[in-house]
Amino acid sequence: MMNEVQQSRLDLRSDTLTLPSAGMKDAMAAAVLGDDVYEEDPTVKQLEDKAAGMFGMEAALFCPTGTMTNQLAIKAHTRPGDEVICDHLAHIYRYEGGGIAVNALCSVRPLQGINGRISAGDVRDAINNPDDIHQPPSRLVALENTVNRGGGGYYDMAVIEEIGALCRSHQMAFHLDGARLFNALVETGETPEQYGRAFDSISICLSKGLGCPVGSLLIGKKELIGKARRQRKLMGGGWRQAGILAAAGIYALDHNIPLLKEDHRRAREIERIVKQYAPVAEVLPVATNIVMVRPAGGLPAAAFVARMREQGIYCVAFGNDLVRFVTHLDFTDQQLAQFEDRLKTGFMQG
Amino acid sequence: MMNEVQQSRLDLRSDTLTLPSAGMKDAMAAAVLGDDVYEEDPTVKQLEDKAAGMFGMEAALFCPTGTMTNQLAIKAHTRPGDEVICDHLAHIYRYEGGGIAVNALCSVRPLQGINGRISAGDVRDAINNPDDIHQPPSRLVALENTVNRGGGGYYDMAVIEEIGALCRSHQMAFHLDGARLFNALVETGETPEQYGRAFDSISICLSKGLGCPVGSLLIGKKELIGKARRQRKLMGGGWRQAGILAAAGIYALDHNIPLLKEDHRRAREIERIVKQYAPVAEVLPVATNIVMVRPAGGLPAAAFVARMREQGIYCVAFGNDLVRFVTHLDFTDQQLAQFEDRLKTGFMQG
Amino acid sequence: MMNEVQQSRLDLRSDTLTLPSAGMKDAMAAAVLGDDVYEEDPTVKQLEDKAAGMFGMEAALFCPTGTMTNQLAIKAHTRPGDEVICDHLAHIYRYEGGGIAVNALCSVRPLQGINGRISAGDVRDAINNPDDIHQPPSRLVALENTVNRGGGGYYDMAVIEEIGALCRSHQMAFHLDGARLFNALVETGETPEQYGRAFDSISICLSKGLGCPVGSLLIGKKELIGKARRQRKLMGGGWRQAGILAAAGIYALDHNIPLLKEDHRRAREIERIVKQYAPVAEVLPVATNIVMVRPAGGLPAAAFVARMREQGIYCVAFGNDLVRFVTHLDFTDQQLAQFEDRLKTGFMQG
Amino acid sequence: MMNEVQQSRLDLRSDTLTLPSAGMKDAMAAAVLGDDVYEEDPTVKQLEDKAAGMFGMEAALFCPTGTMTNQLAIKAHTRPGDEVICDHLAHIYRYEGGGIAVNALCSVRPLQGINGRISAGDVRDAINNPDDIHQPPSRLVALENTVNRGGGGYYDMAVIEEIGALCRSHQMAFHLDGARLFNALVETGETPEQYGRAFDSISICLSKGLGCPVGSLLIGKKELIGKARRQRKLMGGGWRQAGILAAAGIYALDHNIPLLKEDHRRAREIERIVKQYAPVAEVLPVATNIVMVRPAGGLPAAAFVARMREQGIYCVAFGNDLVRFVTHLDFTDQQLAQFEDRLKTGFMQG
Repeated sequence: MMNEVQQSRLDLRSDTLTLPSAGMKDAMAAAVLGDDVYEEDPTVKQLEDKAAGMFGMEAALFCPTGTMTNQLAIKAHTRPGDEVICDHLAHIYRYEGGGIAVNALCSVRPLQGINGRISAGDVRDAINNPDDIHQPPSRLVALENTVNRGGGGYYDMAVIEEIGALCRSHQMAFHLDGARLFNALVETGETPEQYGRAFDSISICLSKGLGCPVGSLLIGKKELIGKARRQRKLMGGGWRQAGILAAAGIYALDHNIPLLKEDHRRAREIERIVKQYAPVAEVLPVATNIVMVRPAGGLPAAAFVARMREQGIYCVAFGNDLVRFVTHLDFTDQQLAQFEDRLKTGFMQG
Repeated sequence: MMNEVQQSRLDLRSDTLTLPSAGMKDAMAAAVLGDDVYEEDPTVKQLEDKAAGMFGMEAALFCPTGTMTNQLAIKAHTRPGDEVICDHLAHIYRYEGGGIAVNALCSVRPLQGINGRISAGDVRDAINNPDDIHQPPSRLVALENTVNRGGGGYYDMAVIEEIGALCRSHQMAFHLDGARLFNALVETGETPEQYGRAFDSISICLSKGLGCPVGSLLIGKKELIGKARRQRKLMGGGWRQAGILAAAGIYALDHNIPLLKEDHRRAREIERIVKQYAPVAEVLPVATNIVMVRPAGGLPAAAFVARMREQGIYCVAFGNDLVRFVTHLDFTDQQLAQFEDRLKTGFMQG
Repeated sequence: MMNEVQQSRLDLRSDTLTLPSAGMKDAMAAAVLGDDVYEEDPTVKQLEDKAAGMFGMEAALFCPTGTMTNQLAIKAHTRPGDEVICDHLAHIYRYEGGGIAVNALCSVRPLQGINGRISAGDVRDAINNPDDIHQPPSRLVALENTVNRGGGGYYDMAVIEEIGALCRSHQMAFHLDGARLFNALVETGETPEQYGRAFDSISICLSKGLGCPVGSLLIGKKELIGKARRQRKLMGGGWRQAGILAAAGIYALDHNIPLLKEDHRRAREIERIVKQYAPVAEVLPVATNIVMVRPAGGLPAAAFVARMREQGIYCVAFGNDLVRFVTHLDFTDQQLAQFEDRLKTGFMQG
Repeated sequence: MMNEVQQSRLDLRSDTLTLPSAGMKDAMAAAVLGDDVYEEDPTVKQLEDKAAGMFGMEAALFCPTGTMTNQLAIKAHTRPGDEVICDHLAHIYRYEGGGIAVNALCSVRPLQGINGRISAGDVRDAINNPDDIHQPPSRLVALENTVNRGGGGYYDMAVIEEIGALCRSHQMAFHLDGARLFNALVETGETPEQYGRAFDSISICLSKGLGCPVGSLLIGKKELIGKARRQRKLMGGGWRQAGILAAAGIYALDHNIPLLKEDHRRAREIERIVKQYAPVAEVLPVATNIVMVRPAGGLPAAAFVARMREQGIYCVAFGNDLVRFVTHLDFTDQQLAQFEDRLKTGFMQG
């Protein structure tokens, strides 16, 4: 019986887990390749041009990971000794291994936003006096949208624009960690161009909800991308025939964006089911494909995760008191039905 | 009339402003000197031995500033990519120019303590999972005592020991920024040895309340001090005949510690006077030589400072809503009387 | 006529230019994938285990580039302020964008070896006094084999072992940049195990002569690879379903190593042909797949390259006076014949 | 007998060993002080203005050491990932603890000059292609004058100007490590203004031949000095009542420069004496106050130094085969006579 459950594992740990679809694999097999260090891989160039075009920005750079695109942006916008302002839950601060200090030698001023989202007022209060040599100069504000650790919520464009205006008036750069930006866009109906106008640089990820095996893009002005290309080389990101992965990216941008809506619908179902059948004290507002749950009765997150795993359901603990479920391309309606069945019988009797 | 006020300026901006006394200058003039890079300055060695001995620790290193001693300690305890835990008001985080990132390439996890003081519980919640490569390893906890930005309050030894135990059980180092530690000791009656037992490294400053022109000491184990000596060289702190300054330090440790009590008495008087005569909404609890004031009626800190300056009284704005007064060796009872006179006539009619 | 030449471009700029063969692409399409950040990609694990096993070492890490594997090794072996000893032509020093300083904050002591190869005596003379705080501690010796910039020559194992013994006696780590190590092995008949015993860490590249689109491996002890895995994350190398690229690597290690001998034979033919038909003052000794040429008569390298390009032959200038040709999997005997034909008619009449 | 020798120790290890003279100590005792972090120490400001004025440059910054002034200049002129060009014997590269990598994250291209002095041709050959992302951008050329490790020789102004022109045409900054610049000036008759016109920044040291206990100055444009002041803070160089040391500096610039000629005369005498009485294979050309000696007959430098020490003569080994003697303010003609007496009787019979 347990074996059967394992065979039909329901993996909701992350949308990074998706495997390339048949159509995507065909696109990869057919890709025309070249050496990207020489800037001669036509498929890489096609992907970079496509992404820059979508956002109405000048240029893009294809990289192995979202951490690399974020870190390159931070390095390009700052000098050692500068300070980066972001929410205290931001991926760049909490989940990139301390890279801001290691790669850019910058301080971080983590703000106490609401579910990972900060306001222009929060930012204004955190800007250091540029003439006081005791304090690092505030040089960059970075938002994350949607916010992973905050439960997948998204920003109002008005808030973004207000923060952007503040950045411009204080000579600060403005970066978006848009690893899951398309999840926000399919909900709000906003366009990539609107984001391209609002930010100095945007990082998007192809290997989360969009289903690619590997790859992220940094998008911005030509000068910034030129700087980032040089830094990418010495960070070890100057790969060769990356077109085979870029082909997957082109396919994903062409086909997979609308499918995110289905992930969101299934996430709301997950919310309904866990509230109904699992010992849950609170669920952070479900806005996209992330369901962030606080177990009831002081049950530690790790214990909650372990009990789920007994049912063949995989989720992830965030600290001691939060558990994350993420829906994605490889989580189907049939699996959703199994999810409900297992919780119905499992947790209630557990 | 204004000229007279300026002549008799009452400078309460910082205890770093003190000038060496006649006795201290005599000690400096009489110092036997040598080249400290060769470790041959006998007066430097005498000071270092004296300080290490006071704290019951193995060794000490004499440096130009408290920022250097703190930064050397942080570098010596960590590797790039580690995380330092401290209060969000800590001097090492807020007022050392972003040095933790630049000098040690470490992240900071700033905690929301009470007036700059954190608890063992705060620390426990902030320790990262050492096996998760997304998160920087928590490697160092640093306290500040007394806390400058927090209004000069000091820690209970029991809290310090509880945090120290937590550090040991998590293989984290434990550093004290003791720039104003002697201000705490003269109030609590605790001894330097107690602190020497509690921490892995301690930084003390000679050019604040103790009245030296220049100098701080890092105190700790021999191995740590050896590492710090090497790093001091490449940070540009390998000075030569520093014995001339060390002589002042020896004098200060011999003569000036008990005088701090007088500074504290005058600080409480400052508190009484500003509450009585100045537009003050709140004064942070006055525990030592710092009086941190919140102006009333939304008066910006800078405006409050400007009005004080019209009376020949110098104080400092901390952000938009706090103003700091610091008593010190060169602020006498006679000046205190002038302070009261000026506020009585000045602010009330202002 | 020119169009025809362009169509039949003979590209000898680098062995990084190779495209995946049909067999390799089939292997990639069939790969079983997973998320490598969770260490769950079975094909990545298979490649890492295979590589570690070949060298008789404990573990391996699959990365996007050889620059990343080298930089990770340097970071893992050193602390900021240490010094790395290598030849002044070493790839890690000259062609990784200054990464040793940026990623590891280490100094470099570049030695004047012979065609990029250094001796134990060279190393011995360069070791700094570990007790002198003026000098950075010598912590790592790195060899490159074969040496790209030195014309593709390889080391005697006896020299390697002598340097290794010196490293051990001075507590210095010993790293091999083996981007083209298999080119050396097929000539000497030595085994990967011999290298695994000699070095503390080895970096090998799959996307040069072995023909993979993307990928390099760092090989060493478990502890070292664990450190490198953490650092890879914050350098942006924590990719996801990298198994699709790892499958190519497994194919290459299984099928393509013996083919390097053919590249070497063709390189010696290139040498013969350029000596016969092109204005060449000197050719560095041709030992493997690299032909490093010094143009005759003071002809600048860039001009030599330009004249080659008129014949549809692509090669690369190294500085002002050297030109590099590299043979590789996609350069066939038929292309070699065209190479001779074009030079015969082109340069002689040019 | 040995005790007597020790009492009358002849210390020629370095000109950093000098102790402040009576006149200098009087100047220090009389100095008016303030807090230099607030830029309120009038004596520090007077020294900085005086130094900037001497060189016809805009501003200066008073720091604890020459290493700090050099490192601040390098940081201010570069970004991480840039490359610094200098001779392979340069103090900034060999004797500042690897600080260029640690403080500025820059690579070094060490050139093989003649006794530490490089030519415009050497520099030209070392400039990297700014468009090649494999290579760090060449951003700064640094000369040392006089060259410590090269035996105290000095540059021709024509060579300096030629290198300066090359820097300007390649957008590279041009820094002088002038720790012993005044030793060159008293020989050539050139003026500080000539140097101020030639370089973007100059570092001079007060605690070598000029006899101060502590202190160096960085001199340059206002913008550069502003940057350096901020960086000085976070490197731990933001000292307080430094005027007590600055007073010594003012005294030294007013009184001690002409005395360097006497040091040079005594250095030539040292050369004559060691050639006559000690086992010496070669003496590097003696141009100023440094005598760099190669022991004869393969005698290791350390053994040569040990034999000297038996005579109460202190000198320093540089590597395995060079020994350095430095004359200075505290080495008198009477001591010179003793030096000759001791060698005459000591080494000949040793």
